[in-house]
Amino acid sequence: MKFELLDQVRTQNPIAFNISNFVTVQDVANGINAIGGSPIMSEEINEANAMVQMSNSVTINLGAFTEAQLDQIKAVGLAAQDNFKPVVLDPVAVGAVAYRLERCNQLLDEFPVTVIRGNAGEVAALADVEWQSKGIDAGDGNADVVAMAKALANKRNCVVVLSGKTDVITDGSRVTQVYNQTDLFKLHVGSGDMLSSTIGVFLGTGADPYEAAQMASLTFAVAGQVVANKMEQPLAGSFGPRLIDELYLINKSTVEAVGDFKEG
Amino acid sequence: MKFELLDQVRTQNPIAFNISNFVTVQDVANGINAIGGSPIMSEEINEANAMVQMSNSVTINLGAFTEAQLDQIKAVGLAAQDNFKPVVLDPVAVGAVAYRLERCNQLLDEFPVTVIRGNAGEVAALADVEWQSKGIDAGDGNADVVAMAKALANKRNCVVVLSGKTDVITDGSRVTQVYNQTDLFKLHVGSGDMLSSTIGVFLGTGADPYEAAQMASLTFAVAGQVVANKMEQPLAGSFGPRLIDELYLINKSTVEAVGDFKEG
Amino acid sequence: MKFELLDQVRTQNPIAFNISNFVTVQDVANGINAIGGSPIMSEEINEANAMVQMSNSVTINLGAFTEAQLDQIKAVGLAAQDNFKPVVLDPVAVGAVAYRLERCNQLLDEFPVTVIRGNAGEVAALADVEWQSKGIDAGDGNADVVAMAKALANKRNCVVVLSGKTDVITDGSRVTQVYNQTDLFKLHVGSGDMLSSTIGVFLGTGADPYEAAQMASLTFAVAGQVVANKMEQPLAGSFGPRLIDELYLINKSTVEAVGDFKEG
Repeated sequence: MKFELLDQVRTQNPIAFNISNFVTVQDVANGINAIGGSPIMSEEINEANAMVQMSNSVTINLGAFTEAQLDQIKAVGLAAQDNFKPVVLDPVAVGAVAYRLERCNQLLDEFPVTVIRGNAGEVAALADVEWQSKGIDAGDGNADVVAMAKALANKRNCVVVLSGKTDVITDGSRVTQVYNQTDLFKLHVGSGDMLSSTIGVFLGTGADPYEAAQMASLTFAVAGQVVANKMEQPLAGSFGPRLIDELYLINKSTVEAVGDFKEG
Repeated sequence: MKFELLDQVRTQNPIAFNISNFVTVQDVANGINAIGGSPIMSEEINEANAMVQMSNSVTINLGAFTEAQLDQIKAVGLAAQDNFKPVVLDPVAVGAVAYRLERCNQLLDEFPVTVIRGNAGEVAALADVEWQSKGIDAGDGNADVVAMAKALANKRNCVVVLSGKTDVITDGSRVTQVYNQTDLFKLHVGSGDMLSSTIGVFLGTGADPYEAAQMASLTFAVAGQVVANKMEQPLAGSFGPRLIDELYLINKSTVEAVGDFKEG
Repeated sequence: MKFELLDQVRTQNPIAFNISNFVTVQDVANGINAIGGSPIMSEEINEANAMVQMSNSVTINLGAFTEAQLDQIKAVGLAAQDNFKPVVLDPVAVGAVAYRLERCNQLLDEFPVTVIRGNAGEVAALADVEWQSKGIDAGDGNADVVAMAKALANKRNCVVVLSGKTDVITDGSRVTQVYNQTDLFKLHVGSGDMLSSTIGVFLGTGADPYEAAQMASLTFAVAGQVVANKMEQPLAGSFGPRLIDELYLINKSTVEAVGDFKEG
């Protein structure tokens, strides 16, 4: 685990371009700022190239795209490829809606992505594994989440972060499991989106994608757990602002001390 | 009052599809999660059918629709009708803007809705009663709010929730008034939208619409009052996250103990 | 400094129409409510005239516009001109993206604005001064911020509010500098947008634009500093709701007592 990547984020202050989910965009922007990046958002195709060029990474969240926006998303993905910028893809609800799965797979055929971050239902759908999603939630299934994540990483030649009770980070051969958790992540609607954009910030340092995804996932999970542990009862609404508080306050020592993970 | 509906929401965890107001969508999504539902949002017509089919209820908020979005809204409304899914309509600012009133009435002519939730100005406009709205606020008028709500319920053959200092819930003959309140609801921009989507969650249990609207309104009002009573001074900003905290923590006993209402 | 304008805002409760940045719109709406205005948002050209006519001021935020939205923005700007409604323009990221600068200058050629509120990078770009922006952040430069702000005020015949460590308010000849500050403004993504819409609320009283911009900027800066001073450590996420708390609680006496500024 490259703990020093957190310091690097704070020193480099990467510009993180996000095609965002309008449901959670404010939390995502504030989370990026708090962890040490600089967020920039746009839905306009005419500035796709400019946005990508000034950025250190691109995060594409498919949480609420419309057909009309797909051209912009493609333009951004292709610009990222041309400019060698790392891309995180968050395939929201592709496990639940056939239309989303189809469009997401089309995008993945058009341009390469560096990291896919999804829940079990989303990763299963992209990896063609049987799974029962429930709306935007992960749902349940009997498949081995590590095997599923590895299958998708190999299929799409990228790093996969499958987040859930345990976060699985894999490049198709190496696997890290992060055990830090809180149930409040599930109660707070933007948590997955924020994790994806946090990975984008870490990628923006130019670090190795697997190591960036590892450390981003661990930092985010530890921050959530630290916040939850300070609460006497679960506060589903206050968790949002306090998670952003902690993303700003957290440092390498805290991640080292609280981090609970297995590399292999 | 069917207090047990709150437990039923938590047990069934209804999927609540929301066509949302982009101003308040994050609070709405978190509120749905907190009370015990599972939110899903989309603005894309190609997935309208899929979204409706996987959902237990639909909430259509007209807070910030554009002409281009009306086709999707109609598609969702018709899909809800075809699939027997209950629909909540929130007619934001129809009391203030003639264009909105016209479009809202057109939608109401196209597909049936189960519940309309609005403030006095909005209900007055849809019921053709004289009233002076102020922007998105309710405004003032001399009309009898109960009579207005009943008139609209009978006109559109649905349940009407007229929220304000007193919330009025009516199916056109039966009337419930909820007296729990806090001025912070007015200060917090998303309160009305959250109430509408909370009603959507309760409808998603399959309960009788009048009983679902009653209990959803009472639960929401009690949650707001509980939060306000804990504050030494009104905290207009902190009210948002704390209301979501309470929507998660609130239970049947609290609603029974604090609830102040009259059925008739 | 016309301190009494704050009381006037609370008495008059101006309707503030905002074409908003979808990233920060919820904070903006809540901030408007808290300071004493009444927010209304729309992206629909068919209601542009109605919205402007019922409003006391218009705030146009270019944070996330699309080409398709430009027609509506122009319609709103022209309606404001026809109806003598003051306009605030927030030229987000025009210092960083050539496309945005071009479109923003085209808008400024089409209709007059009363106040431009931007950071140093944005004001520099609109005033044709050399400056190095960084994404949506102000960036660094050696130019004199007062000279830059005056140049833009004279070029566009409006009041300019250049916000940063020191806020500069100028009508091209008179200059006010506000020294109240907190670094948390930079960490919280919506701060600049909220300042712009707060200026819109103060303009909505019908006050002199320079005096309205002065007092709005001072009130907002004092509110932020008051919140920050109560924190033992910087809380990047909690700052958002607490700033809205303070925008509601703040009064003339607090602004007079804490305000640190120089008029000239």
